[in-house]
Amino acid sequence: MPGRARREADFQPELRKNLVTREWVIIAKGRGKRPSDFAPAGEREALPEHDDACPFCTGNESKTPPEVYAVRDGGRPNSPGWTVRVVPNKFAALRATGSEHLRTIGLHSARDGFGAHEVIIETPDHNKDLWEMDLAQIEGVIQAYWQRYLAYESREALQYVLLFRNQGLQAGTSLAHPHSQLIAAPVMPHQLQVELQGGAAYWEYLGRCVYCALMEDEMKSGERVVLETEHFLVVTAFAGRYPFETWILPKRHAIRFAAMTEAEATDLARVLKDVLSKLAGCLQRPSYNFAIHSAPTAEHNVRAYHWHLEIFPRITTLGGFELGSDIYINVVAPEDAAAYLREAEAPAA
Amino acid sequence: MPGRARREADFQPELRKNLVTREWVIIAKGRGKRPSDFAPAGEREALPEHDDACPFCTGNESKTPPEVYAVRDGGRPNSPGWTVRVVPNKFAALRATGSEHLRTIGLHSARDGFGAHEVIIETPDHNKDLWEMDLAQIEGVIQAYWQRYLAYESREALQYVLLFRNQGLQAGTSLAHPHSQLIAAPVMPHQLQVELQGGAAYWEYLGRCVYCALMEDEMKSGERVVLETEHFLVVTAFAGRYPFETWILPKRHAIRFAAMTEAEATDLARVLKDVLSKLAGCLQRPSYNFAIHSAPTAEHNVRAYHWHLEIFPRITTLGGFELGSDIYINVVAPEDAAAYLREAEAPAA
Repeated sequence: MPGRARREADFQPELRKNLVTREWVIIAKGRGKRPSDFAPAGEREALPEHDDACPFCTGNESKTPPEVYAVRDGGRPNSPGWTVRVVPNKFAALRATGSEHLRTIGLHSARDGFGAHEVIIETPDHNKDLWEMDLAQIEGVIQAYWQRYLAYESREALQYVLLFRNQGLQAGTSLAHPHSQLIAAPVMPHQLQVELQGGAAYWEYLGRCVYCALMEDEMKSGERVVLETEHFLVVTAFAGRYPFETWILPKRHAIRFAAMTEAEATDLARVLKDVLSKLAGCLQRPSYNFAIHSAPTAEHNVRAYHWHLEIFPRITTLGGFELGSDIYINVVAPEDAAAYLREAEAPAA
Repeated sequence: MPGRARREADFQPELRKNLVTREWVIIAKGRGKRPSDFAPAGEREALPEHDDACPFCTGNESKTPPEVYAVRDGGRPNSPGWTVRVVPNKFAALRATGSEHLRTIGLHSARDGFGAHEVIIETPDHNKDLWEMDLAQIEGVIQAYWQRYLAYESREALQYVLLFRNQGLQAGTSLAHPHSQLIAAPVMPHQLQVELQGGAAYWEYLGRCVYCALMEDEMKSGERVVLETEHFLVVTAFAGRYPFETWILPKRHAIRFAAMTEAEATDLARVLKDVLSKLAGCLQRPSYNFAIHSAPTAEHNVRAYHWHLEIFPRITTLGGFELGSDIYINVVAPEDAAAYLREAEAPAA
């Protein structure tokens, strides 16, 4: 807790089990850090509002593949006048072409990288993080997520849609202009399989959704609650792998992101703005990723899932222990992180 | 392949399945890079041979916890005269103290971070990467791995021992002085469970070890072979998650690292030196991790495992797709990486 005297007992590390995935993490409070210990790596470059060389800036619409979705005040497709614009990724990890068939290479199996990879350009402004945009703009981004998610959810050959965002160099950003990404894949990710299995096992034993149970428990204790709105609960993860790992959970049980109501979508924009502002204020504008976890598009019988959004500040570097074992060492207790975040405000402009 | 004209077909990404873990990765050859495209991030600081402020340098033995193992030409414990020295980690992620009992926190399970965390100081020289040491020194490091592994393997309360190494800032190193680490944990890592399950399933269907089958297949095709010695085969991983991910596989089927013979240990030192030299030459002294995957210490019936060493160059940054889905995007085809590594030599001194 901020200002709390550090006791010897605080230095005993703790192993915690993720309730959904059943993975262990080490909370190494002995290495415990205050937010100010995580200095941003390198000076943050001040960006201009517009960059003629940026393919995502207004006026450069011809430098991207043709748009597949846009919110426009005016103008024709692929010309200025948009406020949110979605285009296929020019350097796509998965593509609309290719065969759906598995092939054998020696002992191994492989298939064409069939699928989709899109870029959601969140604003014409070159230099804003998502939380710095006004609320209407963020609502437009959420609407774009929603529409593009729906566009892929029904395609039979695709099993899975992931919406995610990389902010900052340590989070793997290649272009500074604010954007999110969508990847639709023909295979199910291991991480989601593990979450589905965990959710199903919990439901089998206890007759309810593990995320619903988790929210009830978190609201009771309050220790890890960052904020709460009409439709969402925001908590730091009890067995978070990353310092300040934060989850945005919809209160209403729904397996798919696209099952949101309009009221929930509007509330989500507000919650995202608030949480990302707090992280920016608390951790000096850290690099971060977020990803929307939603049920696989191809599964029909997954009442035990519960869509949510996970945020990972990238303020530490994974080492050989994490890569070699998949056990993560988290140097900030989630209860401390939540206390810091509850008090945090957006950085002064 | 080096110098090969790039064809349009090269740009179709490919999904590949890991034969052991059954996880998918995306090989995005279209983003395909040559080794020179991966510039080391930031100028490499020239280090002195000795640093008075370094707790791992000769003369500073009192700055670490007392040693638990050392190779010495002379001198008393915790004084100069050592060539390899092992000490408990001062900032341990797991500790020898604490209860072995599980406790309940709300809905969650946790336990004390009971276990061990040691540092293997590989040499008195402050400024050498492992491959730059002479062969006798590397053999001493392997012997230290072996002895410390044996020291923990038989403790009933510990299920798992991981030996690993972080080299360079992007690999999570906190101290520049050459060192490896050992963590002994009371829980089984998820990654190892998945490998064990994969190995067991393969054995059940095909009656043999999946790693033995893999080696036979790799030797037949040769495409991903980097080098071969009497006791080891070195290949780039068919479904490698990281560009230039390289595995060192013992030819003789053995489930545990500590089952090595003296001849294998000596050969391993030579192989490690050669492979790390090639990576350093090919990728301009990249940051990297390696980890020794060995059967869990607590399991008795795991004939289907096969110990090995995995090396991950850290030349790209994981983004929200990897963190959110556990599907990795690898921008260098493993066959190309192997071709580059076969030709590579150690950097000029």
